[in-house]
Amino acid sequence: MKVLTVERKVLKKNDDIAAENRARFAAANLTVLNLLSSPGAGKTTLLERTLEKLAGRYRLAVVEGDVQTDNDARRIARYNVPVVQVITRGGCHLEADLVQDAVANFNLEELDLLFIENVGNLVCPANYDLGEAWKVVIISTTEGEDKPLKYPPMFRVAQVCVINKIDLLPYVDFNLSRAREYARGIQPDLQFFELSARTGEGLDAWIDWLENLIRQNPPDSGSTRKPGIEKQQ
Amino acid sequence: MKVLTVERKVLKKNDDIAAENRARFAAANLTVLNLLSSPGAGKTTLLERTLEKLAGRYRLAVVEGDVQTDNDARRIARYNVPVVQVITRGGCHLEADLVQDAVANFNLEELDLLFIENVGNLVCPANYDLGEAWKVVIISTTEGEDKPLKYPPMFRVAQVCVINKIDLLPYVDFNLSRAREYARGIQPDLQFFELSARTGEGLDAWIDWLENLIRQNPPDSGSTRKPGIEKQQ
Repeated sequence: MKVLTVERKVLKKNDDIAAENRARFAAANLTVLNLLSSPGAGKTTLLERTLEKLAGRYRLAVVEGDVQTDNDARRIARYNVPVVQVITRGGCHLEADLVQDAVANFNLEELDLLFIENVGNLVCPANYDLGEAWKVVIISTTEGEDKPLKYPPMFRVAQVCVINKIDLLPYVDFNLSRAREYARGIQPDLQFFELSARTGEGLDAWIDWLENLIRQNPPDSGSTRKPGIEKQQ
Repeated sequence: MKVLTVERKVLKKNDDIAAENRARFAAANLTVLNLLSSPGAGKTTLLERTLEKLAGRYRLAVVEGDVQTDNDARRIARYNVPVVQVITRGGCHLEADLVQDAVANFNLEELDLLFIENVGNLVCPANYDLGEAWKVVIISTTEGEDKPLKYPPMFRVAQVCVINKIDLLPYVDFNLSRAREYARGIQPDLQFFELSARTGEGLDAWIDWLENLIRQNPPDSGSTRKPGIEKQQ
């Protein structure tokens, strides 16, 4: 409560920069996804499986947000996709200005999809718009199905919910339909993907959805947005 | 960066109240543990199994911190232990003043152990001293063994690390000894417990350690601190 005013100013400033980012992404016909989850829910592994399927066929880039280490950027770089690591040094979320600086390293006009992997945190990143088109919240079957009830702000701002680690369903107490019901109670329009980034089960629907996003990108003046064009770092 | 000064003032104020809490707990010969983890790592389940073993034999109380819902407090209340739910309404961590208000509901002199279950967040709660004697960070085998590297502040401030969900080790890629090594790289004095709160495997060492803490409490003037005294809500 004591820093409410300051916090509001920070959020307002963040929203202003996020709006600049959003305009910039729109001008480049670029679809941007913000991946959000608890630590260890599988954001990076999902991203790796996604790059495995899409890199080479589409022009992708990644912004990696982490409290510390560039481990995730190094994991991503193996897929020959341009990646920028943002290390927050203790900061609990990405902000729009960090993303603005990060994407200055890319030629946005030459990209089809940009993934932003946020800091692993199911609370704070919900408050910080980055200018993305899609907020994708990832929960895993090992976390318990009550997470939407206990962390509602994140589910309120998300459009997509990935339920990861379905390969572990036989070994954990997790009720899939109850998880969906709880999440839809917070955000009725939420779209779900249930998959295992580890085994690949259920991954196809997620990949199809991403390809659809790319196809729906308004084509720019060249025909460079078609599948099959490669761009690697 | 822009709120650094304000943040420092907030932390200073928090530290002052935490010091008051610590003095208050010491005066009551009360051992206080702050349980910290990502969402879904198993804090509440570990607490339930702990209360199952210790409630009735010792005088315990719980402060539950959550972003939303009193689900956890209701889970804890089934063990006939006094519990206060703190709902942060979006706040990403507990602060010392919230704990000060919460524990005003207990007669601290009549307690042996107080557990504070923090908000599920591996980042922010690391910065907020609550006046506890022990910070216990809980990670689970489903989160990946790299968590200490990626979230070092939390491991730097902790004295104890519980590695939970060891029942899932056969089904996940998690190297126990590497997890310990990474964590000890951050905090060499870290003490480990490896267990499954779900199956009970490995729980005994944790329970023994807690009983030892209680026995080490300097006895107060009465002999009310001995095992066997019951106090329930």
